[in-house]
Amino acid sequence: MGDRALLTDFYELTMAAGYFDRGKAGDTATFDLYFRQNPFHGGYAIAAGLEFAVRDILETRFEREDTLFLSGMRTSRGTPVFSDGFLQYLREYCFRGSIRAMPEGSVCFSSEPLVQVTGNLIECQMVESILLCHVNFQTLVATKAARMWEASSRGSIVEFGMRRAHGPDGAVSASRAAYIGGAEATSNVLASRLFGVPARGTQAHSWVQSFPSEMDAFRDYARTFPDDCVLLVDTYDVLESGLPNAIATGRELENSGHRLLGIRIDSGDLAFLSQRARERLDQAGLGYVKIIVSNELDEYLISEIMAEGGRIDVWGIGTKLVTGDGADGAALGGVYKMVEHNGRPKIKLSNNPVKTTNPGAKRVMRFYNSQGLMEADAVGAASEELSEAEVLIIDPHNPLRRKRLGESQRSEMLQTVVTDGRLVSDPPSLEEIRKRRKHQLDHLHESYKRLRNPHEYKVGLSLQLWEQKERLLNPRMA
Amino acid sequence: MGDRALLTDFYELTMAAGYFDRGKAGDTATFDLYFRQNPFHGGYAIAAGLEFAVRDILETRFEREDTLFLSGMRTSRGTPVFSDGFLQYLREYCFRGSIRAMPEGSVCFSSEPLVQVTGNLIECQMVESILLCHVNFQTLVATKAARMWEASSRGSIVEFGMRRAHGPDGAVSASRAAYIGGAEATSNVLASRLFGVPARGTQAHSWVQSFPSEMDAFRDYARTFPDDCVLLVDTYDVLESGLPNAIATGRELENSGHRLLGIRIDSGDLAFLSQRARERLDQAGLGYVKIIVSNELDEYLISEIMAEGGRIDVWGIGTKLVTGDGADGAALGGVYKMVEHNGRPKIKLSNNPVKTTNPGAKRVMRFYNSQGLMEADAVGAASEELSEAEVLIIDPHNPLRRKRLGESQRSEMLQTVVTDGRLVSDPPSLEEIRKRRKHQLDHLHESYKRLRNPHEYKVGLSLQLWEQKERLLNPRMA
Repeated sequence: MGDRALLTDFYELTMAAGYFDRGKAGDTATFDLYFRQNPFHGGYAIAAGLEFAVRDILETRFEREDTLFLSGMRTSRGTPVFSDGFLQYLREYCFRGSIRAMPEGSVCFSSEPLVQVTGNLIECQMVESILLCHVNFQTLVATKAARMWEASSRGSIVEFGMRRAHGPDGAVSASRAAYIGGAEATSNVLASRLFGVPARGTQAHSWVQSFPSEMDAFRDYARTFPDDCVLLVDTYDVLESGLPNAIATGRELENSGHRLLGIRIDSGDLAFLSQRARERLDQAGLGYVKIIVSNELDEYLISEIMAEGGRIDVWGIGTKLVTGDGADGAALGGVYKMVEHNGRPKIKLSNNPVKTTNPGAKRVMRFYNSQGLMEADAVGAASEELSEAEVLIIDPHNPLRRKRLGESQRSEMLQTVVTDGRLVSDPPSLEEIRKRRKHQLDHLHESYKRLRNPHEYKVGLSLQLWEQKERLLNPRMA
Repeated sequence: MGDRALLTDFYELTMAAGYFDRGKAGDTATFDLYFRQNPFHGGYAIAAGLEFAVRDILETRFEREDTLFLSGMRTSRGTPVFSDGFLQYLREYCFRGSIRAMPEGSVCFSSEPLVQVTGNLIECQMVESILLCHVNFQTLVATKAARMWEASSRGSIVEFGMRRAHGPDGAVSASRAAYIGGAEATSNVLASRLFGVPARGTQAHSWVQSFPSEMDAFRDYARTFPDDCVLLVDTYDVLESGLPNAIATGRELENSGHRLLGIRIDSGDLAFLSQRARERLDQAGLGYVKIIVSNELDEYLISEIMAEGGRIDVWGIGTKLVTGDGADGAALGGVYKMVEHNGRPKIKLSNNPVKTTNPGAKRVMRFYNSQGLMEADAVGAASEELSEAEVLIIDPHNPLRRKRLGESQRSEMLQTVVTDGRLVSDPPSLEEIRKRRKHQLDHLHESYKRLRNPHEYKVGLSLQLWEQKERLLNPRMA
């Protein structure tokens, strides 16, 4: 699909035209991308989608056909929406601003900036839709995958979701994000080719149905794939038919010098069936045969099946991984808000304190405790060092809640990704991103990972940033 | 994104390789695409996504780079997954089968085929993932849009969802599907260009923040867009600041021979604020100014705001439209099941009657009552006429429930779209599809459209199809 420059909300273009028309093309600005609630009412999120967003932002060029289309747009009076001057501006447009961001795979939290964009007002505004689109979606799916990975005691998660994904390209993005968050393979062949994610697959019920008997179907599959044979055992009856036939096929494979790789159970009581299957496979000397389960799984079902003693080697997960399937909607509600304009901090007020923005360009410092576990994130002004022995942080939604962070290890969370429209380095590989996710989750206490009512991780403003917000909230008191 | 042929689940390719290897490339088959539950626990769905699915199915060719990638895939023993013979088969592959389907925009129901694919076993299998991906997603979003359209008493719905969509291309598909289902415009500029959906947009809070005052911001926007000026009135305070400034701007526009188009309220109590805004605009002689609202709306909120007397002209809807946001997950659980193989009907059993398939190639006849309203759909064998004066239908999940459909208007729901790999006609325009949706919803009784606990529309099997299913369920009784 060409025309990527038009992948934007119409209001980005009308606002840009307005800024251009009203002589504000030279204004500067900083915008924060952040979310107000962790997805799935959870204790954390896994940042993802940045590479796609930055690629699209840096590659945006308005080609002739794009501006031709825009030049044909009409107001309700029939006059052109966009002036020739603005269309010429678009023809010469490319993003020349700067981007700082938490690297993909980072553990991150609500109320702190994941991405910060600085540049001229028009370019900062124009990148909004595409940036939010990639980061919201991939962060949602990466977080979902991480929750499933943790719920399965860091087991094997395979993403199977293409058929329920939001269009084929949504499926490809979802495969990447799921891999970042904790899946180890995908059923999506294109995602495998594009990103190097291992491809996996078993078989559909239609395979079994197309043979005179289940045994014929299993035997023939094993003949074609003697070393990668996973048999779907629930077309007729798992315990009465599928499992005995799979065991017979496993024995035949052994006799010809191969090993049955696994069986897949796609319906029924997965905890119970997996236990029975494990027993019978073991009794048959097929202890090496893996048990793969699927069927509308999510992290809650995984954790219940684990608690009930299910004997699962691989979790095949589709719908609820690639769509996010959150209790608060299948979307991460990331927003992108102006926090500075022409060097001055800006605030957006709201009756709801959570919706009042935190003004000013920022840095984010993560503090660790003496056990090396994450303790709190301090959001300070970009100009602050945050290197004092003791740093006070203040809950932006309730200034009565304050915390002193002592001497400890700390790390800067926002890294420079783009300066003056250029990437400062090649984006990290997916393997590096996966390592970062694992490493950071290793340093996050279990209480933040609970599926229900997790401990609330502390993210606070530095005193300087808080006082600045207070001045903007109460201008007469300043 | 190239490599569209690889946009599939890996198991489609391994099964195809198995069929090829085991001498079944010449087998024939028929598969049904259907869903088991109406989305959103609703009373109906709006079929969508077919044009995209058929386009991808007919355009699938395995290019050199695709088969090169596949030839490099290895089994766990390090041998090639795919044989040279099969890769050669893929290089020559194109879909030569036939497709019958309910046209996009059709009102449709659970347990009846939306799409039926007939051809050789391999091609029928290979199209599964891409077909499900497009039809599941677009049907979900079109249905959601229709529910919102009906909840607003067929008001103006504008789709604003790109930033929360599942990747940029997911956003484009969602814009199309929302337009099919009932939205009248989109914020997505690319969707506007590709599909001719009208583009709409207002402004972001950042526009207002980038001026010394809200009044300056409104005035400057009105100068650039005097005929399409919609002002976002909730950056500071709707009633105290935004609305008075909008009214002042409206008067200035009148003085210069223009008219303020609208105001947008993006937070707060939308029923209350819209009523106050309507009163004050009317008092100011600005009765023509439209009120646009947004903020995490869905059909339930729309219906509550309507019930509370909200004065809304346009509903701007993002997240919950483009993601579906269903109570049962952000996905339509459409499945694709083999119903015939080498001319013989096939069944997939399940302990859950809803998951037991209805065997055999089918036709679907819709019966209307004497008022011209839809009464029931009869699913018969493809070879049946269903033209008798009286047709008996049997609930496939509970054979005790039967219904006789009398002499009345009836219409064939599955139309031939592709024969022997060729489109039988150009796909309908989006305007035709929208007309079909409106026309069919006009003939669906309100009781099926209720948001909660809708009346259950009757879809039943013909006696012939039911008896065939019974024979396959109880082979010894046959």
